[in-house]
Amino acid sequence: MDAFHRLEATIRDRRTADPATSYVASLFAKGRPKIAQKLGEEAVETVIAAMAQPDKLVSEAADLMFHLCVLLADAGLDLDDVRAELDRREGLSGHAEKAARTKGA
Amino acid sequence: MDAFHRLEATIRDRRTADPATSYVASLFAKGRPKIAQKLGEEAVETVIAAMAQPDKLVSEAADLMFHLCVLLADAGLDLDDVRAELDRREGLSGHAEKAARTKGA
Amino acid sequence: MDAFHRLEATIRDRRTADPATSYVASLFAKGRPKIAQKLGEEAVETVIAAMAQPDKLVSEAADLMFHLCVLLADAGLDLDDVRAELDRREGLSGHAEKAARTKGA
Amino acid sequence: MDAFHRLEATIRDRRTADPATSYVASLFAKGRPKIAQKLGEEAVETVIAAMAQPDKLVSEAADLMFHLCVLLADAGLDLDDVRAELDRREGLSGHAEKAARTKGA
Repeated sequence: MDAFHRLEATIRDRRTADPATSYVASLFAKGRPKIAQKLGEEAVETVIAAMAQPDKLVSEAADLMFHLCVLLADAGLDLDDVRAELDRREGLSGHAEKAARTKGA
Repeated sequence: MDAFHRLEATIRDRRTADPATSYVASLFAKGRPKIAQKLGEEAVETVIAAMAQPDKLVSEAADLMFHLCVLLADAGLDLDDVRAELDRREGLSGHAEKAARTKGA
Repeated sequence: MDAFHRLEATIRDRRTADPATSYVASLFAKGRPKIAQKLGEEAVETVIAAMAQPDKLVSEAADLMFHLCVLLADAGLDLDDVRAELDRREGLSGHAEKAARTKGA
Repeated sequence: MDAFHRLEATIRDRRTADPATSYVASLFAKGRPKIAQKLGEEAVETVIAAMAQPDKLVSEAADLMFHLCVLLADAGLDLDDVRAELDRREGLSGHAEKAARTKGA
């Protein structure tokens, strides 16, 4: 199990915890708009870090992944759905590339 | 190797391709500000999907992951750095929780 | 009439134009999620310009204002509502400051 | 003098205040990356309000305008520069439309 799976397991565990003591539970309690807002804010912080504070980039990217996992969970989804989508595209891309090579040859 | 590792391998492969035919190469050629801008835009689309178009959420999240991987690669980093940061926090969090439980008990 | 009022008048005029030839009309035709997305994207571009391309900042800020006016119009609002809110706060802030000074004195 | 000019006058006044008691002064003290981050975050909140909390839209738009004015001021610019850019475009747009009408006629 890799770190992202562990992260998602933690999020599932804490989802039903007390919002007063669990940040994860508090996010779910506040609902979709607040979770989406946090994702957007972490993306802004990742952008700023990439432009001006490279030593913070990994930490901001970790915050972004955390809130993406919470947002997906709130919608009944997880990163495996995203992995499946990426694999589907990779397959398409392979075909598209093959077609391009055939045409190009 | 999971889908994210395959995605990052594809990004590494295409980084030195012809920007005229490879989207990945064109992003690296345009540089950090453009890559960061795309990450921010994909985050906005993820937010909108989460709020109003849930059937697009997985696809937007995949776009977000793709551009996050490109941004990390442009900074000489990858998702394993993010995984390590998440594991480091999980460890801290475990300790913090244990301390809290001890105090609470 | 200042430039923002002229901008809002133009947006009102074009709102009912042909979406095939008017960008304003095309935005209203696509609806709230697309308009909100564009606002978010222009904000990201403003952030990037502020960090790395200061010569583009005025142009990006103009794009941001344009899309903010379209978003407000889509919700039946305009910049005068925002001006009223700012004046309301300025008043509060004056009172708050006065109270603080009185307490402090 | 309209509300935006008053806002910008307030920002100029407070810029040199004590960061411990003035939010405006604290933003300038933190510098460009923090100011740009706040602008991005307020844009995200404006997007969320537009999608799900229309009663908060004017308030979020006011926050966005406030932070845009601070960002412009940090770069030695103000809303009059944005107004000039919008007027310049309106002129261009008038010419472009006239040309299009002539061609179309």
